[in-house]
Amino acid sequence: MTVVKSTLPEPARRVAGDALQSTLVDLLGLSLIGKQAHWNIVGPRFRSIHLQLDEVVSAARSFADTVAERSAALGVPPDGRPETIAAAYTLPGPKEGWVRDGEVVQLIADTLETAIGRLRERITATAEPDPVTQDLLIAITSELEKQRWMFDAENWPRGE
Amino acid sequence: MTVVKSTLPEPARRVAGDALQSTLVDLLGLSLIGKQAHWNIVGPRFRSIHLQLDEVVSAARSFADTVAERSAALGVPPDGRPETIAAAYTLPGPKEGWVRDGEVVQLIADTLETAIGRLRERITATAEPDPVTQDLLIAITSELEKQRWMFDAENWPRGE
Amino acid sequence: MTVVKSTLPEPARRVAGDALQSTLVDLLGLSLIGKQAHWNIVGPRFRSIHLQLDEVVSAARSFADTVAERSAALGVPPDGRPETIAAAYTLPGPKEGWVRDGEVVQLIADTLETAIGRLRERITATAEPDPVTQDLLIAITSELEKQRWMFDAENWPRGE
Amino acid sequence: MTVVKSTLPEPARRVAGDALQSTLVDLLGLSLIGKQAHWNIVGPRFRSIHLQLDEVVSAARSFADTVAERSAALGVPPDGRPETIAAAYTLPGPKEGWVRDGEVVQLIADTLETAIGRLRERITATAEPDPVTQDLLIAITSELEKQRWMFDAENWPRGE
Amino acid sequence: MTVVKSTLPEPARRVAGDALQSTLVDLLGLSLIGKQAHWNIVGPRFRSIHLQLDEVVSAARSFADTVAERSAALGVPPDGRPETIAAAYTLPGPKEGWVRDGEVVQLIADTLETAIGRLRERITATAEPDPVTQDLLIAITSELEKQRWMFDAENWPRGE
Amino acid sequence: MTVVKSTLPEPARRVAGDALQSTLVDLLGLSLIGKQAHWNIVGPRFRSIHLQLDEVVSAARSFADTVAERSAALGVPPDGRPETIAAAYTLPGPKEGWVRDGEVVQLIADTLETAIGRLRERITATAEPDPVTQDLLIAITSELEKQRWMFDAENWPRGE
Amino acid sequence: MTVVKSTLPEPARRVAGDALQSTLVDLLGLSLIGKQAHWNIVGPRFRSIHLQLDEVVSAARSFADTVAERSAALGVPPDGRPETIAAAYTLPGPKEGWVRDGEVVQLIADTLETAIGRLRERITATAEPDPVTQDLLIAITSELEKQRWMFDAENWPRGE
Amino acid sequence: MTVVKSTLPEPARRVAGDALQSTLVDLLGLSLIGKQAHWNIVGPRFRSIHLQLDEVVSAARSFADTVAERSAALGVPPDGRPETIAAAYTLPGPKEGWVRDGEVVQLIADTLETAIGRLRERITATAEPDPVTQDLLIAITSELEKQRWMFDAENWPRGE
Amino acid sequence: MTVVKSTLPEPARRVAGDALQSTLVDLLGLSLIGKQAHWNIVGPRFRSIHLQLDEVVSAARSFADTVAERSAALGVPPDGRPETIAAAYTLPGPKEGWVRDGEVVQLIADTLETAIGRLRERITATAEPDPVTQDLLIAITSELEKQRWMFDAENWPRGE
Amino acid sequence: MTVVKSTLPEPARRVAGDALQSTLVDLLGLSLIGKQAHWNIVGPRFRSIHLQLDEVVSAARSFADTVAERSAALGVPPDGRPETIAAAYTLPGPKEGWVRDGEVVQLIADTLETAIGRLRERITATAEPDPVTQDLLIAITSELEKQRWMFDAENWPRGE
Amino acid sequence: MTVVKSTLPEPARRVAGDALQSTLVDLLGLSLIGKQAHWNIVGPRFRSIHLQLDEVVSAARSFADTVAERSAALGVPPDGRPETIAAAYTLPGPKEGWVRDGEVVQLIADTLETAIGRLRERITATAEPDPVTQDLLIAITSELEKQRWMFDAENWPRGE
Amino acid sequence: MTVVKSTLPEPARRVAGDALQSTLVDLLGLSLIGKQAHWNIVGPRFRSIHLQLDEVVSAARSFADTVAERSAALGVPPDGRPETIAAAYTLPGPKEGWVRDGEVVQLIADTLETAIGRLRERITATAEPDPVTQDLLIAITSELEKQRWMFDAENWPRGE
Repeated sequence: MTVVKSTLPEPARRVAGDALQSTLVDLLGLSLIGKQAHWNIVGPRFRSIHLQLDEVVSAARSFADTVAERSAALGVPPDGRPETIAAAYTLPGPKEGWVRDGEVVQLIADTLETAIGRLRERITATAEPDPVTQDLLIAITSELEKQRWMFDAENWPRGE
Repeated sequence: MTVVKSTLPEPARRVAGDALQSTLVDLLGLSLIGKQAHWNIVGPRFRSIHLQLDEVVSAARSFADTVAERSAALGVPPDGRPETIAAAYTLPGPKEGWVRDGEVVQLIADTLETAIGRLRERITATAEPDPVTQDLLIAITSELEKQRWMFDAENWPRGE
Repeated sequence: MTVVKSTLPEPARRVAGDALQSTLVDLLGLSLIGKQAHWNIVGPRFRSIHLQLDEVVSAARSFADTVAERSAALGVPPDGRPETIAAAYTLPGPKEGWVRDGEVVQLIADTLETAIGRLRERITATAEPDPVTQDLLIAITSELEKQRWMFDAENWPRGE
Repeated sequence: MTVVKSTLPEPARRVAGDALQSTLVDLLGLSLIGKQAHWNIVGPRFRSIHLQLDEVVSAARSFADTVAERSAALGVPPDGRPETIAAAYTLPGPKEGWVRDGEVVQLIADTLETAIGRLRERITATAEPDPVTQDLLIAITSELEKQRWMFDAENWPRGE
Repeated sequence: MTVVKSTLPEPARRVAGDALQSTLVDLLGLSLIGKQAHWNIVGPRFRSIHLQLDEVVSAARSFADTVAERSAALGVPPDGRPETIAAAYTLPGPKEGWVRDGEVVQLIADTLETAIGRLRERITATAEPDPVTQDLLIAITSELEKQRWMFDAENWPRGE
Repeated sequence: MTVVKSTLPEPARRVAGDALQSTLVDLLGLSLIGKQAHWNIVGPRFRSIHLQLDEVVSAARSFADTVAERSAALGVPPDGRPETIAAAYTLPGPKEGWVRDGEVVQLIADTLETAIGRLRERITATAEPDPVTQDLLIAITSELEKQRWMFDAENWPRGE
Repeated sequence: MTVVKSTLPEPARRVAGDALQSTLVDLLGLSLIGKQAHWNIVGPRFRSIHLQLDEVVSAARSFADTVAERSAALGVPPDGRPETIAAAYTLPGPKEGWVRDGEVVQLIADTLETAIGRLRERITATAEPDPVTQDLLIAITSELEKQRWMFDAENWPRGE
Repeated sequence: MTVVKSTLPEPARRVAGDALQSTLVDLLGLSLIGKQAHWNIVGPRFRSIHLQLDEVVSAARSFADTVAERSAALGVPPDGRPETIAAAYTLPGPKEGWVRDGEVVQLIADTLETAIGRLRERITATAEPDPVTQDLLIAITSELEKQRWMFDAENWPRGE
Repeated sequence: MTVVKSTLPEPARRVAGDALQSTLVDLLGLSLIGKQAHWNIVGPRFRSIHLQLDEVVSAARSFADTVAERSAALGVPPDGRPETIAAAYTLPGPKEGWVRDGEVVQLIADTLETAIGRLRERITATAEPDPVTQDLLIAITSELEKQRWMFDAENWPRGE
Repeated sequence: MTVVKSTLPEPARRVAGDALQSTLVDLLGLSLIGKQAHWNIVGPRFRSIHLQLDEVVSAARSFADTVAERSAALGVPPDGRPETIAAAYTLPGPKEGWVRDGEVVQLIADTLETAIGRLRERITATAEPDPVTQDLLIAITSELEKQRWMFDAENWPRGE
Repeated sequence: MTVVKSTLPEPARRVAGDALQSTLVDLLGLSLIGKQAHWNIVGPRFRSIHLQLDEVVSAARSFADTVAERSAALGVPPDGRPETIAAAYTLPGPKEGWVRDGEVVQLIADTLETAIGRLRERITATAEPDPVTQDLLIAITSELEKQRWMFDAENWPRGE
Repeated sequence: MTVVKSTLPEPARRVAGDALQSTLVDLLGLSLIGKQAHWNIVGPRFRSIHLQLDEVVSAARSFADTVAERSAALGVPPDGRPETIAAAYTLPGPKEGWVRDGEVVQLIADTLETAIGRLRERITATAEPDPVTQDLLIAITSELEKQRWMFDAENWPRGE
C-alpha cells in the first residue's frame, strides 16, 4: 500500500522526485559549507562576508525545507540524512581550517555557479512533467543567481 | 604564525576545542536527522510531532552556531563540513523513507539521551580548563534534556 | 460600453475567466467546509486538526481573494455569492453535525485531492492564453498539494 | 450518548442554539456578499468603499467563528456548509456582475439594517435562557450598528 | 475609617464581593492545577494537551487578576494567599505524580464544568446588585465554556 | 428627511441618546482635566501620578470616541464642541496653576466617583430601551471604577 | 517661592509663555472640533474625510501635549481646562448636528489657515526671546500647513 | 575580461538583458510620474487617490530594484540614470502643475495599460531564453494588472 | 516500569529533585503573595510598588515553570498543587486585607531574603550531583537578589 | 482662480518655491544615481557600499517627498517628472556600466558635497521669507553632511 | 592633507567644532553620572527615580552620538575618551556611595540647569557660523529643559 | 546602620565587590573608547568596523549595567563616575584624532584580550565566595571572547 499518495502519474512523479532530491542535497550541502566558511573566514573583509554568508545559509535552509516538503507532497520521501549528503554532494567546498576572505568569495561564487548550472537543467526537465515543481526550481535559481552576482561582483578584479 | 590567537593556554585550548568539535558534530547531525524525521513522518500524530521536531532542529542549529563560534573564539577552527559530519556522527538516526510517528518519538528520545550522556562527560572535562566553555555545554544539556523529557513523556506507555 | 476593460484578447479572456471562476468557487467552498469541520470535529486528535483546518481555511480565503481580483483585473466580474457557491460547488464536504477526527482527515485529504486534479487541468488550459493566470494557479496548486500531503500523512495507516 | 455535553438545561440550550445558528448564517452570508461587492464595485468612490467592505467582511468572519464556537460550547453543532447558507440566507444581496458604488452603499446599509433587526429579537429571546449568549449578540449588534451608520452617513443625500 | 471606599451600597457590595472572592479562589486554583497537569502529563497526546493547558492557565491567571482588582475597586480586599486557596478550593484536581493524557482531558473537562456551574449561579446573584460585576462573570463563563467544549470534544468517545 | 436613520424606535432613541451625550461630555471633560493635572502637578510623587493621569486620559479619549460613534450609530448627532463641554461639564476640576500631588490624587478620585455615580444611573435607564448602549456604559463604569480604586488606594491615609 | 524655576529671564519667559498658552488653546480646540466633524460628517466622501480628520486630531493632541510641557518647562503653568478653551478659542468651528462632507472640508481648511496665520506671528515673536520655543512653533506650523494643503486640494474646485 | 560573469549563453543573455533594461526604464518612469501625480492632484477625491498612487510608486520602486539586480545577476549592467530614463521613457505622463483627480485616474489607467502591453511582449520573448527572467516579468504584470483594474474601475463611468 | 526516565543516576536524581521541588514551592508561593500584595496595597506609593510587584510575580511564575519542567526532565514529577503549596510554603507572607505600602516593601524584602538563603544552600548541594540544575538555581538567585536589592533600597531609612 | 492657496505672501512664496524645486531635483537625481551605483558597483568592498548606498537612496527619497509636499503646501506645484530631472539635474553622476568600489565612494562624496553647498545657499535665502522651509532645508543638510562624512572617511587615504 | 574635509569655512568650523566638543563632554558626563545615581539611589522614591534616570541617560547617550558624528561631519575629530571627560567635565555630580532619593532629584535638577545655561550660550554662538549645528543644539536644549522641569517639579517643596 | 544589606558574609562580599567594581571600570572604559573609535575611524573599511564597534559598545553598556546592579544587590555601592573611570582604567585606548581602520582593529583586539585576561582571574577568584557573581563574569567573558575573535580574524594577516 502506498504510504503517501502522489498527485502525479508515475513517470512525472519520478522526474520531479529526482530533480527535487538532487536539489535537496545541493541546498543542504550549501547550507553546511556556507556555515563552515562563515566560521572559518579570516582577513580584512571578515565581517562583511561573515554576514553575507549567513544570508546564503538562510536561503539554502529555507529552500531545502520547501524542496523536501514538495517532494513529500508528491509522494516521494526526501532524503537529507548526513550520510546521504556526504555521499551525493558534489559542489565545490572549503578545505579544513581557516580560509582567507578572498578565497571564500571565489569559492562561494564557484559553488553557486555550479549549483545554478544544475538547477537550469532541472528546470528544463520538469517543465513538462510538473510545472509546479518547475516553478519552485525557478524561484531557487533566481535567488542563487542573485547571491552569485554579489559574490562575483565582490570578486573583482579577480585574484585580488 | 597563529592565525587566530587563543585566550587559553595550550592544554586547556585542546580540551575545550575537542569538546566543542564533538558537540558541533552531534548538533549538526541532530539538526539534519531532525529535519529528516520532520519530512518523513507519517501517522495520526503527524502534525504534532512534525512541529515538535522543528523546535529540536531550531535549537540544534542555534547551538551549533554558538559552539562553532566559541571554538573559533578559542583559536580552534571548527569543522562542520558534510564529509566531517558523515564520518564523525555516531548518534542514532532514521532509516530511509517514511517513518511512523511512534518510531520517530522513540528514535528522537534515544538520540537525545545518547547526546546528553556525551555532553555530561564534556561538562566534567571542561570544568577546570575552561569554565566559559563548560557554561555553554551546561546550557545545551539543559535544553536537550528538556526536549528529551517531552519525547519520553510522549513515548509512554512505551511500545504504543 | 465595457465596464472594466481587459488586457487580454477576447478568447484568452474567456479561458482565463472560466478557470478563475471555477477556482473561486472551489476555494470559497473549501473555506466554508474547512470551517465546518473546524467547529464540528470530535475525538482525541481534536486540537491538532482543529488548528490545522484553520490553516487550510486561511489559505483558501487568501487565494480566493487573489483569484477574484485577478478575474476582475481581466475584466471578468467574479461571482462568489452564496447561491452561486451552493449551485456550483462539487467537491466532497462534511455531513451535518459532529464528525470524528479520523473522518475529517480522510474528508479533507479527498477534497484537496479532487481540487488539485481540477487545478492541474486549468494550469494546462491557461498556459497559452494567459501565463499570468497560470502562474497564480500554479501557486495555489503548490499550497494545496502541501496541505494534502499533511492530511494524507496523518491518515496513515488508512482506516485507523 | 451525547457527543458534546451542554452546560445549559435543554429548553435554554434550544433557544440559544437557534439564535446562534441563525446568526451564523447571517454572518457567513454577509461575509460572502461583502466580498462580492468588494470585487465587483465600480465608480469614482471605488477605493474607499472597496476598503470599507473588507472591514465588514473581517468583522463578519471573526464574529461567525465566535458564534459557531459558542454554539459548539453549548453542545449544538453549528452548520455553516454552502448548501445551508444558500438555503437559509435571507438578507439582501448584490446582483451578478459589476455594481456601481452608490448602489453598493445602499445595499450594504440595507443588509446591515435587516441583520440588526433580527439580532435585536435574538437579544430579547436569549436574555433569560442564556445571558452569556446574549452578551455575544449584543457585541455583534454594536459592531454592525457602527458599520451601518458609516454606510448610511455615506449614503446621504440618498439617491446621490 | 474605610480604607478603600466602595461605589456600591453595603448589601450590593457584600453580594458582589462574595461572588468575586469565590471566583478568585476558583481561578487561582484552576491556574495551579492547570500547570500541575501541564508538567505531569504523559502519553501519546502529550504535546497537544501540554500546550492546550497553558491556554487554560493563561486565561485563569488573567481573569484572576481582573476579578481581584474588581473586588478592590468595590472596596473589598481580595484574598488569594496560599492558605486561603488551599482551604477554599473545591474543584476537582489531579492526584500526585505523572498522569495519563486521557485522564487529564477528563479531569479538566470536569473541573471546568463544575466551575461553570458555580459561575452561572453568581451571574444570577449579581444581576441586580451590580451589573458591572455580572458582566465580568459573563465574560469569564464565556471563555471557560469555550475551553470546556474543547476538552469535551477531545474526550470523545469517552473512556478512550 | 432623516439624515442618519436610527435602528431604535423614537423613545428608546431619545433615552439612549441622552445617556450617551451626557457621558460624552463627562469623558471629554475628564480627558481635559486629566491632562491639566498631568501638566501642572508638582511634588515628590510627580512622576508616578504624571504617568497614571495619562492612563486616565487615554481611557477617557478612547471611550469618548466610542460613545460618540455609538450615538451617531443611533441617529443622534453627538456634540463635543468646546462651548458644549464648558457649558455642560459639572464634574470637579483643578484650579488654575500648579497643583500639589496629594491634591491631584484627591481631586481625580472625587471626579471619578462623581462620574461613576452618574454612569450607574444611566446603566439603569438604558437597560430596557437599548441593552447595546447599556453594555457600553457598563464597560466604561468598569474601567473608571478601576481607575478610581487606584487613586483612592493611593490617597490613604487621607489628608497625607 | 517660585514653584517651577524657569531657564529664561523674565521678559523672555513671558513672551514664550504667552505664545505657548495661545497655541495650546488653538490646538486643544482644534482637537475637539476635529473630532466633532469626524463624528458628524455625512455625504459620499464620509469615509475618506472621517479618516483624514483623525490625523488632524492626532497631530493636534500630540502637539498640544508638547506645547503644554514646554510651557511647564519654562516655569509657566499651562491652562487647558474646559472653561479656558471655551473662553479663549477663536478659530472657526462646526455648527451643531450633522454636517455635509464638502462643508467639513471647507471648514477645516479655514480653521487651519487661521491657526497658521497666528502661529506665524508667534514664530516671529519668539525668535529672539527663545529659539527653542520658536523651533517647536515652526514644527507645528509645518505640520498644519501640510494638513491645510490636503484639505485645500480636496476643496477644489471650490463650492463643489 | 568580463566584469560580472553571466550564467546564460550570449544570445539568451542579450534577450533577457534587453527585456530587463526596458522594464527598468518603464518602472522607474512610472515611479516618478506616480509621485508627480501624488503631489499635484486636486479635487474631491484627492485623499483616496493620493494614497492609491503611493501604492503604485511603492510597487514600481520595489520591482525596479528587483529587475535591475536581476540584470546585474545576468552580467548586464542596468542603466537607471536620469538621462537614460528621460531619453527612453515613452509611457504617458502628467503635464506640469496641478491635475484634477479624474484626469489622474484616466492617466494612470492609460499608463499602466501601455506598460502591461509591453510587458506581455517581453514575457513571450523571454520564455525560451530565460524562464527565470520570464517568471519575474509575470509577477510584475500580475501586480500592474491589479493596479490597472482598480484605476479602471474607479474611472467608470468614463469621463465623470 | 519508570514513566519518565532520568538522565541522572539515582542519588544525584534525588538531590536535584528535592532542590527543585522546594524551589518550586517557594516560587509558586512567592507568585501568590506577590499578587496578594499587588491587589491589597494602599498608601501614597501605591502605583510604584503595585507595578514593581508584578515584576516579582512575573519572574516567579516564569522560573517556577522552568524549575518544574527541569524536575520532569530529570524524571521527578513536580508537585505544585494548592494543598502542597499551602502545606510546604514557609516564607513570610502578608496578613489578610489592605496593607500599607511601607509594610509591603518590608515584607517582600524579608521574603526574598529568606528565599535567597535557601537557594544558596541548594546551589551548594547540587554543584556536584547536577551542575545543570545548579546553573538554573544560580540564575534564579541572581534575579531574586536583584529584586531584593530594589525593595531594600526602597526600604531606607528603615521604619519610614 | 488659484488652485491651492498659499499661506505666504507672493515674494516669499516665490523664494521658498524656487528653493524647494531645486532641492527636489537634486534629491530625486541623487536617489536615481544612488541606485545606479548600488546596482553597478564591483570590487572587494561591494557589499558594504552596496548597503550604504541604499541608506543614501532611502534618505533622498524620503526627503524628496517631504520637499515636494512642502512646496504644494505653499501653493507651488512641484515638478519631479523624468524630463524635468534630466534637464535640471547638475550634480556629478556615474558613467554607464560597472563601476569600481573606490570610484563610487569618491563620486558619492563629491555629489553630496556639491549638493550640500547648494543647500547652504538656500538655507540663507529662505531664512527671512519662510523659516519653516528653512528648517526643512537644515534637516536635509544635516543628514546629507552625515552621509558625506561617512563616504569621505571611507575615501581615505584618497586615491586608494 | 586633511583627513576628513569640512563643508564649512575655517572660522565657522572652529566655532561649531568647539561648541560640539564641549557639548559632547557634558552629555557623556551626564550619561555617566545619571547611571551612577541610577545605581546608588536609596529611599522610598527609589523605583520611580531609578526609572526616570534611565530616560536621562538614554537621551544623553543618544544626543552624544549625534553630536560626535556632527563634529566628524564638519571635519573635527570628536574626543570622548575617559581622560578627556574626566578633565573637561565641570557639571555637578554625585558623591561616592549610596545617595538618598531627595538628594538625587536636587542634584540632577542642578546638573541639568547648568548644562542648559551653557547650551543656550552655544545656541547664540553658532547661529551665524552654522545654523545646522545650532538646530541640533536647540533640540538638545529642548529635551534637557523638559527633563529638568520634571526633576524640578518633583523637587517641590524644596528641601522635602 | 547598613544602607543596603548584603546576602553574602563579609569576606565573600568584599571579594565579589572588588571583582565587580574592577569589571565595571573596564566595561565603562570599553564603552567610551569603543565610541571614540566608532567616531574617529577612517579608511576603506570604515563602514564595516564603524558598525562592528557599536556592537562592542552596546554589549559593554549592557553588561556594565548588570555588573553595577549586581554590586548594589550585594550591598556594595558601584562607582562609575567620570573621575573614577579616568583614574582606574588601564586597558589600551585610542590616541586623539582620526585613526586608520587597521589600527582600530588592532587596538580593539588588544583591549579585549587584556580585558579577558583580567576577567579570567576574577572568575577564579569568585568561584568560591559567590558562584552567582562568577556566573555573570563567565557570561561577560564569553561575549568579549567572541568579539575579540572577530576583530582578530579581521586583523589577519597582521600588519596589513
